[in-house]
Amino acid sequence: MYEVPKIPQATAKRLPLYYRFLQNFSNAGKIRVSSRELSEAMKIDSATIRRDFSQFGAFGKKGYGYDVQELLQFFRSILDRDEATNVALIGVGSLGSAFLKYNFHRNHNTKIVLAFDTGSPHAGEKRSGIFSFHPDVLEEKLIEHSIELVILTVPAKAAQPLADRLAGTDIKGILNFTPVRLDVPDRIRIHTIDLSVELQTLIYFIHQQET
Amino acid sequence: MYEVPKIPQATAKRLPLYYRFLQNFSNAGKIRVSSRELSEAMKIDSATIRRDFSQFGAFGKKGYGYDVQELLQFFRSILDRDEATNVALIGVGSLGSAFLKYNFHRNHNTKIVLAFDTGSPHAGEKRSGIFSFHPDVLEEKLIEHSIELVILTVPAKAAQPLADRLAGTDIKGILNFTPVRLDVPDRIRIHTIDLSVELQTLIYFIHQQET
Repeated sequence: MYEVPKIPQATAKRLPLYYRFLQNFSNAGKIRVSSRELSEAMKIDSATIRRDFSQFGAFGKKGYGYDVQELLQFFRSILDRDEATNVALIGVGSLGSAFLKYNFHRNHNTKIVLAFDTGSPHAGEKRSGIFSFHPDVLEEKLIEHSIELVILTVPAKAAQPLADRLAGTDIKGILNFTPVRLDVPDRIRIHTIDLSVELQTLIYFIHQQET
Repeated sequence: MYEVPKIPQATAKRLPLYYRFLQNFSNAGKIRVSSRELSEAMKIDSATIRRDFSQFGAFGKKGYGYDVQELLQFFRSILDRDEATNVALIGVGSLGSAFLKYNFHRNHNTKIVLAFDTGSPHAGEKRSGIFSFHPDVLEEKLIEHSIELVILTVPAKAAQPLADRLAGTDIKGILNFTPVRLDVPDRIRIHTIDLSVELQTLIYFIHQQET
């Protein structure tokens, strides 16, 4: 197992972004890149980038910048795991369907491999190319497919009961698109994206700017 | 215009959440609530809640907690504006369609009132109950409907060209679901939700926990 540096959550959130932008620079044939160039491309201030990179042990040389391939190698070692991460989606409504169609194409190591929906039969059916099963068979299918991560796109009232069942399985993370704050054991990491909250927050900020 | 306190962005992001949870407490008939109760319901630590609330000028009384109606009144004055915020959606693909169907029901003041898609005619057509127009008529329709905020769910390659056109209009914010870091004038606030980054970050964290 490679050494994973302990880095703050705010920095960690930028890791996949750094990786993507460095890939872009690499694809464009760039050998080296300055924090200023990264800053302009990513809309993150350059002091933050330099601080982040120094936490990874990467230090730019004055008048040279960073070596693109060296940085890429580093980010690859952290983010691009050899084993794929198997993801299941629960709730094939309109948002769930969109995710099945999208299926995170940009990241070859991460894939929704199965889905669950109350409208699907126990034996499963294809939905946007992915097998979707009735939630009655949730636990056995999660084990069968070694699922580590679940994307939750169910109606709010179904969220906590499902989280309770997931707490009895070996999954390690839930990407929660319901507005419910889920109650699960500490070993399951939850990341909630509440689209309504995101929208309201943006509205709050644009009106604050008016004053 | 009511007085909007200047509060840090991290705190502001929690405003809509506080509001929603206080509404739940109010609906359940609760007169007062402690920071501990809010903490348990929201999965935010109680010290953070107390610090946030003191920034709003709200101080809980020892052994009593906070007055639910007083807090609600405060949050309502900040978040629930009398005027509705008109939102347009650009890109009625699978994710865009999901948003049209969802249409942020929980917030009566925020509504997607029109959409744009290259597959729609200039004269418009109904998609999930919302009129969708060809992007050729973008500028005139945004003005006609007093649109302040745009949700961007277009393919990556269409994102910056559209942002350039939006920069020539009066819109104030973009909720960006494309992976592109958009380049726009400072007066337009951008909030990017990159689902692929969110997923990769969660995967990074669940694997970090293993070590």
